[in-house]
This record gives sequence, structure tokens and C-alpha cells, in this order.
Amino acid sequence: MALNVAQKLIAAHLVEGDLEPGTEIGMKVDQTLCQDATGTMVMLELEAMGLERIRTELSVQYVDHNLLQTDEKNSDDHLFLHSAAQRFGLWFSPAGNGVSHPVHQAHFGRPGATLIGSDSHTCAAGALGMLAIGVGGLEVAMAMAGQPLYVALPEVWGVELTGTLSDWVSAKDVVLEMLRRHGVSGGVGRIIEYHGEGLRHLTAMDRHVIANMGAELGATATVFPADDVVRDYLEAVGRGPDFERWEADEGADYDLTEHIDLSSLEPLIARPSSPGNVVPVAEVQDEEVYQVVIGSSANPGLRDFAVVAEILAGRRAHQRVSVDVNPTSREVLADLITGGWLTQLVSAGARIHQSGCMGCIGMGQAPASGRNSLRTMPRNFPGRSGTEEDAVWLCSPETAAAAALTGRITDPRTLADSLGITFPRPKMPERFAVMDEMLLPPLRPEEAARVDLVKGPNISSLPDFDPLEDRLAAPVVLVMGDDVSTDEIMPAGSRVLPYRSNIPKISEFTFTRLDPEYPANAAAAGAHVVVAGKNYGQGSSREHAVIAPRYLGLKAVIAQSFARIHWQNLANFGILPLEFEDPADLENVSRRDTVVIEGIHEALRRGHSVAASIGGREVALRHRLSDRQVKMVLAGGRIPLAAQEA
Amino acid sequence: MALNVAQKLIAAHLVEGDLEPGTEIGMKVDQTLCQDATGTMVMLELEAMGLERIRTELSVQYVDHNLLQTDEKNSDDHLFLHSAAQRFGLWFSPAGNGVSHPVHQAHFGRPGATLIGSDSHTCAAGALGMLAIGVGGLEVAMAMAGQPLYVALPEVWGVELTGTLSDWVSAKDVVLEMLRRHGVSGGVGRIIEYHGEGLRHLTAMDRHVIANMGAELGATATVFPADDVVRDYLEAVGRGPDFERWEADEGADYDLTEHIDLSSLEPLIARPSSPGNVVPVAEVQDEEVYQVVIGSSANPGLRDFAVVAEILAGRRAHQRVSVDVNPTSREVLADLITGGWLTQLVSAGARIHQSGCMGCIGMGQAPASGRNSLRTMPRNFPGRSGTEEDAVWLCSPETAAAAALTGRITDPRTLADSLGITFPRPKMPERFAVMDEMLLPPLRPEEAARVDLVKGPNISSLPDFDPLEDRLAAPVVLVMGDDVSTDEIMPAGSRVLPYRSNIPKISEFTFTRLDPEYPANAAAAGAHVVVAGKNYGQGSSREHAVIAPRYLGLKAVIAQSFARIHWQNLANFGILPLEFEDPADLENVSRRDTVVIEGIHEALRRGHSVAASIGGREVALRHRLSDRQVKMVLAGGRIPLAAQEA
Repeated sequence: MALNVAQKLIAAHLVEGDLEPGTEIGMKVDQTLCQDATGTMVMLELEAMGLERIRTELSVQYVDHNLLQTDEKNSDDHLFLHSAAQRFGLWFSPAGNGVSHPVHQAHFGRPGATLIGSDSHTCAAGALGMLAIGVGGLEVAMAMAGQPLYVALPEVWGVELTGTLSDWVSAKDVVLEMLRRHGVSGGVGRIIEYHGEGLRHLTAMDRHVIANMGAELGATATVFPADDVVRDYLEAVGRGPDFERWEADEGADYDLTEHIDLSSLEPLIARPSSPGNVVPVAEVQDEEVYQVVIGSSANPGLRDFAVVAEILAGRRAHQRVSVDVNPTSREVLADLITGGWLTQLVSAGARIHQSGCMGCIGMGQAPASGRNSLRTMPRNFPGRSGTEEDAVWLCSPETAAAAALTGRITDPRTLADSLGITFPRPKMPERFAVMDEMLLPPLRPEEAARVDLVKGPNISSLPDFDPLEDRLAAPVVLVMGDDVSTDEIMPAGSRVLPYRSNIPKISEFTFTRLDPEYPANAAAAGAHVVVAGKNYGQGSSREHAVIAPRYLGLKAVIAQSFARIHWQNLANFGILPLEFEDPADLENVSRRDTVVIEGIHEALRRGHSVAASIGGREVALRHRLSDRQVKMVLAGGRIPLAAQEA
Repeated sequence: MALNVAQKLIAAHLVEGDLEPGTEIGMKVDQTLCQDATGTMVMLELEAMGLERIRTELSVQYVDHNLLQTDEKNSDDHLFLHSAAQRFGLWFSPAGNGVSHPVHQAHFGRPGATLIGSDSHTCAAGALGMLAIGVGGLEVAMAMAGQPLYVALPEVWGVELTGTLSDWVSAKDVVLEMLRRHGVSGGVGRIIEYHGEGLRHLTAMDRHVIANMGAELGATATVFPADDVVRDYLEAVGRGPDFERWEADEGADYDLTEHIDLSSLEPLIARPSSPGNVVPVAEVQDEEVYQVVIGSSANPGLRDFAVVAEILAGRRAHQRVSVDVNPTSREVLADLITGGWLTQLVSAGARIHQSGCMGCIGMGQAPASGRNSLRTMPRNFPGRSGTEEDAVWLCSPETAAAAALTGRITDPRTLADSLGITFPRPKMPERFAVMDEMLLPPLRPEEAARVDLVKGPNISSLPDFDPLEDRLAAPVVLVMGDDVSTDEIMPAGSRVLPYRSNIPKISEFTFTRLDPEYPANAAAAGAHVVVAGKNYGQGSSREHAVIAPRYLGLKAVIAQSFARIHWQNLANFGILPLEFEDPADLENVSRRDTVVIEGIHEALRRGHSVAASIGGREVALRHRLSDRQVKMVLAGGRIPLAAQEA
């Protein structure tokens, strides 16, 4: 049978299950990555699991999120992560090295490998013919402990590219076109596989742009073939021998198909405040712009900075506009200097920031209230920039550069006429700067065993998780409506993120957007239950949204339905996710009602029905846990289960 | 009579008073500067005064402090400052241009001119033969309105320099030597004037280092002659025609004298947590170092970065150390690129940050708890770095670079033997990069008049200040001890600084370090009084420490004695500063006692005695206000007085 690239990658790593879309499979994980905002918890999980040394081919801990260091917490976390990487046998990429995804691609990306990462843009590595998936932290910890990754097998969506991009149109516009056509949930349950003759005009870094923002389509992964373009890339980063060809078989087909004629694309832009609000730039011209930000994992290649530099060269940015440039990595910065591009940017008035994610995750660079900010970044959810009333647009480097010059949203194709600028084609070096010595390799096992974890005052070990008791008798502390997101369960942002390694402290923020009294009420109640409507736990994969309420005594969530990743996280951390058999029963539940469930162990093992009494009324509930998950929940979560089984 | 440079500068600007040390004089102010953390309040003061256009030779608003932009407040402030600079006729230096003091020196510094600035390191401009003084914001606002600067005439302290600096010893060590000899109050009430043959080996930027940290000695100003070295500097920044020679007359003498043999100096370092804790580096060698920060107004010259680059060249910083580099300005960054130094720094593992003050005022770069951080900055007060339990050391670029390589405090003179490094003498360009087009000139008056102030939601106009009533009957809300600093009255740091343009909001932090209930109690009381021991209001000049309590209803402070600048600020904003005739009376005062003073207007006009009743007991008080100040206080402060007189 003729296979596409996604199918080949899955088949090569399949350790459990069958290739039947929708059913659960287990895959061997070759590589993992963590960034610092999620990584501290992952390292605390490894500690709690008592892991001696990781069992993946390689795992890397990056520091690219919490770089502002407004107090000691960020720096203390960096020291902790360095010590944990040494202790458990990971590579360590210190603060200043750059954004995880492009650095990982350059140093460790390998065609044919699987990669999971505790960051939703891990999928970017699909550019090299890898199967790369963003997941919750505990999935990464378990993979490092040698366990497979369990996922429902996605459909494969073949997107055929033909033709070539016009001047002033670039890779970002390709993925913006996908978002224009299909919106932010168009890729859910799918792997997107790009193929066709149009591919040969897209460099590996162009493909990185497109694969990265597959996350914005909700796709499980994005896959490109490992072809001559990938070979050239690996040679340019000094790793030619790591190339392996992974291409679709002649006649391979796809579960769904799509076609994009690259030559038909025009400059596109996502309006505030969703990556799905895509319109042609030409339709929104002349809006005043106050900030332009160049950088992030969505446009990380040297070319994406160089093209901006050459557009600005010899000119001065509009005096209204703050032009903020975040070099992807130390290596990209070095190449920008060598190529003369950094001087062009500085002379045009750019502010050159340290390498890292920066404004992309609201770590600085917040724009003024209600003033338009154009960014080459992947996301513009409301308030993510750090500014409550923000107006963030997503676009290509070309469109961003045009706005930097004119102070207004400007179709870059007009620059030729208005300013006499010809479309720049910056010449890339034959070899990119490679600074291997900035990545700290794993210690040898005997050295690693001697390393103590360095925990600053803000870093606390993972709490112990008790097994689930056989009888639950606990009050309802919160009753919620539909579509509660993990941002409402556990906020992010510069106020809360520094506490990501401190469950007792971060638990004080749990549910406070919905009910400021929740932490106090939960603590007073001890064991307790929360109740919700449909699609509970949508949004980000952050597992702090289950660990923190668990720490405060949450034993069960009873909802009309759950979002997939959060549901998985609840089971991973031993909180019982239950659904109403009759959704209408939600109406009868009030705060302070007592929930009583007897014989829980037997009920979970026996089947999917659970009988409860809520506020004195009998209510029929059910669960959707697999046998594997039932075991986890009974043990108190995946970590205590692993400890039992060890 | 033979005059020294300080005397000549004063004489050339004297508009009131006599040249008698200790007596009040008024001087014409040629130039002013503001940075953003103090400037927003200054601009609100200009608005409150109804000023049409500034009357100085030139005034500049810089943005170099609040650059992190963790939410909209910083960016909103930047827009406000831009609009205010346009409205009132100032130059504007936007975020990214760099640190005010060196940028001002390069673009506007002029031998023979007076400069005041709402930043304590304004004194750095003394390097060019200017009389440059850091003051409170309202003094700057008044100078922009055309009023003289009133100060008690300082003594002039002549410091004769002979010999030349040894290899591995640089300008920072000269001022550290002054601090080693005299401590942080050695310069109080004095102008330090450097002279002697040793001067000719110190470049204008070396002199900037020494003049800058005159603030750490407590000096009113530091003065260097405008000699051939200054002429060469002005030529190198493209302003040769602005040179004017200002040198001491043959036989000029000084109120006090001092001698430093430059050739006798060795590398020095200030231990945590005061710039006065200076010891030879050799005495503290081998302490582990986790962070090295290069930059700030204390070591801002191209040479100070280039020397670090050449020491690190071809090597890799110790893996324990985060090497943070804050290029002084866009121009210094451009020159670092051109000279090849930026590549050396990046290749050695440095993190290159945006241009600005950054970690020097606790805006990011906070070190890990208790871990040593070596900085080329001017101050290491406890917690100023942003880290509660910090360990910040101050040193030269040479000493900082040595620690970056070895991971320990290291006398840089040992690098020759240990690593074979010869002392670098980086060759400075004949012409420094000059980017005039990045500084936005004042608008023409007719354009300026049409500009509206742009106020984001966090920017509130200065409150109105009522005249002082003739009868005070108000409760004591707080009773304090000795040496209460303005940091205790109004904290700084990244949590509070963003509210510097919002008096109602920032007032919520007033006195909260001493009494968390003060804001609520003050609001409940309305008109109220606070009582303190000796030296009330020591430390920083921030006028928020008087405006905020004034906003909450503070009418009078009764203390045993006051620190000079805060006492002046109280009068400037119409709060009555009173002293106990008998210090022992403090003992009898309790919270909630009622203070009653009758016939205040008459008492202030008539003399210096004020009769009060406190808690029913008669207490004799006095004030030290000049007639000029009595008028201000009666009017409700200097701004309402100016409005009355306009």
C-alpha cells in the first residue's frame, strides 16, 4: 500500500494499537523538549517519579519564556532547570540561546524522528519530516521515563501546493491562507501533510513557519517530507550526515485533500484578536500602527529578519512606530551581524531585544492601550500581549516592515511605487552560524547521580497525591457554565507565570477569574467537587489547571462534557472526570450541595456508570476513562501509579 | 581673583544671592533633562502650571527606565511623554535610543552650560565642563518655566589627579577609590572638581564614569575642565564647533583638597549592598559569580564594552554565568557592530539586551536569590536589583569580564598569567556613530499649540492643591521613628513604578511598608498629620513621596528633623514641615491624637514659631521655611503659587 509521510512516521513508531483513525495508539517517542514555563513542573514530576535517568534518544530543556527577571523567581527557576537537566540527563539550553523550536530544529531535528514537547508550537519540527506534537507536561515526563505517547490516531489531511509565491508574499501568507479558509479549529483531529511541486520553492525555514502555525489550526501535527530542501538545510547547519529521505510513496493518498496555488496568494493579515480573523492586507490598509514586532517561533529564520532589514535599509522607521526585533537565537543574531542586516535594522531605528519568545507570550513589549501592533508572531488572543485592551495583528515580515516605514497598515506590494523599494531577496550564507558550545550536553550518569536539585525559595516539590478513596462525601464549591477555559481555571501572564514551579503559591490564583473566594472556600472545605456545563477545560494544555485545584482538595469534576486535553490532564493527576447522564441534572445543582458517591473503586472497574447523590437527590453519572486511565485515577494519578509499578 | 572651574560656572549663571558657601543662590538653568520614570510627573506639572512653551535653551525628555512593558502602562506613558514633549517644546528621545546621560552628553552637552535633571545621575555631564545637578521633578518643571534653580552654595572640593592608570585599572576604579576613602556621604554639600596632570589620560567618557558616580558620594555636582580632551570628544561626536574652553585659573584654590596618584590604584569592587563598601578585588577573589552585567550610565562608553569584548574574544563565558550586556544607546550598539566587538560578545555567550537602564533600576535582570552578581553599574542598594535577598557588587568592566570568564571574582591583573590575555586597548573610531535623526526635535510653537496630551487609562492629571487653611484640626495617623527614607514613604520597583503617572493609584502604596493600613486610615480621616523622629525623608528625591500623601489629605509633618530634599519637596507641594522645639515632646504623641493649630497664616508670616495643641497638650513647634517657601506653602504649593503670580 502506498503510504504518505505521516503514515510512514506513525508506522515506524507504533508500539500499541492499530492504524484506525480515532482509536488510541501508542507511539515510541524519540526526542522531547521542554521550555522553562512548563519545564519546571516537568522536572518536579521527574523528581516525584524518582526517575534516575531519561530513556529517550535525547531530551532538551530550553529557557526562552521567563527571561524578564523582574525579581528572583525567573533566575531561581533557571538555576533549578540547569540542575535538573544535569541530574536527569537532559541537554540544557540556557537563557539567551534562543527560542526552543528553531534551536531544536537546527541542532537536533532529524528526519523520521518523533518529538513531543510541553509547548504547543513543538509541531514546527514537522518541517524536517518529523512527527512533532505539543502535549501536556506529564506526557513529556512519561516519555522521558520511557513510556509511549498515547493519542487518538488523527486523519491525514493532504494539502497540495503548486506554483510559486509572488514577490512580497511569503510562507506566513501560506499558513494565513489555511487559517483564512478553515479557521482556528480547521485542523482538529488531523495531521496536515503538505506535498506537491510547490514545495521545492519553500526552504526548511519557510516550512517551519507553516508547520509552527499548524497549532493555530488546531492540528495534532503538521508534516513535510524530508526532501532535497531538507538535505540542503541540514548541510547549512553542519549536520548533513543526519539527513534521511522521508517522502510519500507514489500514489499515496490522504483522508482529506486541499489545494493551494501559491502564485494566487496575496499578503494576508489576521485582525485582532484571533489567528483565524484573516483578511487580505489590501482590505485593511491605512490603519495607524504604533508597534511592529519581528520575531518568535512563527517567523524565526534568518531570512525573515534579513528581508525586514533590506526593506528598511537606508530609511528611518516612522516616528510613531516602536520597531521591536527579537532575534530568534544567538546564532541568528550572529548571522544578522555578519550579513550587515543588524546595522540596517539599528540604523532604521529598531530596538534590538534579547533572544527569546518575549512579547509573543506577553513577556514585555506590551503595546499601548487600543493601539495597533503588527507582529510576525503566531497568536493574538485578547490580552495575550499583556495589554488588557490590545489590538494585535499577525502578518508576514514583509507586511510588518511596510507598516514600520509608513506608520500604517500597508500592502507591501505598494512599496515599489510609493518608495521605490524592490522586493529584497537577501542572500543566505552557505553555512549558518552554529554555536554548539552554547548547548550544555548531558552529564555522564555517574556525574549526574551526584547533582542536587537547586531549588530557590519559590520552587517547591510536587505535592504528594493520595489514592482515590472508595467513598466521596464532599461539597460543591463552584458551579460553572459552558466553555470554561484553562485560562479561567488558571490564568497565565506576567503576574502568575513566575509561580509555575510553586503549586502552593500558584493555587491561590485557581478559578479566581470566576470566583475570587474559590481558593479560600476550597481550603475550608478540604475535599470538594466542582460542577460545569459543556466543553469544560478548553484552550491551553497547562496542567497547572489540574494540579493546583487538586492541591486545594478537588476530588471530582462533574460536567456536561469535557475538552480533550484537560480531560486527559484530570485523569493524569487523579481527579475524577464525571459527566451527567442527563445534562438537565446540572440545573438542580447548587453551591454547597453535598455530593456522595459510594463504592467508587468497584464502579470504575466495573463499567462506565456511577451512581451519586447530589444535595440529597439521586443523579446518574458516567465516565469515559479507559482501563489504563481507571488505574491511574485509582492510584491518585499517573505519577503514583508509575511509582507503584516501578 | 583666581577662580576654579566650579566657581566660574556658578558666577556665569548667578541671578540671585552671593558666593558665600551655605547661603541660598539662584542660578540660570540652560538645559534640563527628564527620564520617563520621573518625567511623566514633570509633564503633568507643566500641564497643571498651564505652561505654554518651555523657556530653557533646550530641554529633553528621555525614555530609558520603563522599557519592559509588561502591560500597557509603560507604552501608554511613552505616548504621553511624546505628546507632552511636542506640546511644550521639548526634544524627545524615544524608547530604544538609550540612557539619558550619555546620550545627552553626546548630542547636547556643552561646556559652560548649566543642566538640571530629574535623575540623580544628571551630574555625569560634569565631564564636559558643565555644572550638572540632579534635582526633584518640580525643580525641573520650574526651570522649564524660566525660573532659576535655588540651591545652598556648595563648597568646592579639589581632587588633584597625577600619574597614569596601570593596565587593568580604569576610570571606575578612580571613583571607587573616592568611595573607599570617603563613603557615600563624603561629598554632601560639595562640588567635586577634578584637576591636575593626571586628567589628560582620562577621556571624556572616562570622566563621565567618575562624574556619574559623584552621586554615590552625595556630591551636589562633579566638575571637570573643558580642555583638549573635551574638544577631541566633541569632534568625535561631530560637534567640534560646540567646544568652549573652561579651565581653572592659574593659582585657583579649593575649599578642600585631595590627591590621587592614578598609578597607585588597583582594581576595586564595592561589596553588597552599598557603593561605599569598597575593597580591593584581590581581597575578595574566588567568590562564585552567577551573573555579570555590563552597561548603565556608570560605564556607558564604547570603550567600556569593547574592552569586555576583547577580554572575552575567542573564549566562552563560564557556564554558570549569565553575561548580560545592555548597550548604552543605539549609537554604541552600531559602533559595537562596526568594530567587530558585538560578534565577540555574542560568540562568548553574552545576552544582548535592548538599550536602556534595564537592571540598573531593577527593570529586569534580577539575579538569583543570594547569588553574586557583578555589575558595572553605579548602585547596589539592597533589593534594588529586584531580588529580595540580592548580592550585587559594583566594579569596572575589566573586573566584570574577568569574572565572566572564570565564574569567580577575579582580579583582572591575573588574567595575563592564568589565561594569557594581554590588557586590551580597543581602538576607538575617529568618529563615533551619530544618529541625530533618532532624536525628535521640538515642534514649532504654532504646531505645538495644536498638540493634545495623549493620556492612557493609567495617566491622571495632577490633583488640584488647595491653599493651606488658617486653622488645622486633624488627627495624627502615623507616628514614626528616626531615619524614615522616601523608600518607606513611597516604594519604587517594578510593582510600583508603572504607576508613577497616576497619583490616585500610587497613593495606595503610601507608607504601606510601615503601616499597611495607612492609605485606608488617611482616607477615612481626610485632613491628617504624621509625626516622625530625626532625619525624616532621607534617600531618593522622588516627589511622589510628598504628592501621594498630600493627595490622601496630609497637611503637616511634625518631626524632630528633616532630610534636605524631602523637606524642600514638602514645601514645594504645600505640606507644612514642622519641628518640635523640644525633641522630647515626640514621646508624648500617640496615634489618633488631635493636632490643633490656630492662626497658621499669621504665625508663618510673622516668624518661625508655631504654637500647637497635640492630644490636648500645648506643644511648641517651629518651621525653617524661607519667605519664598512660606508663600508657596500658604498658596498650597509652588504650582498654585506660580498660577497666582502668572
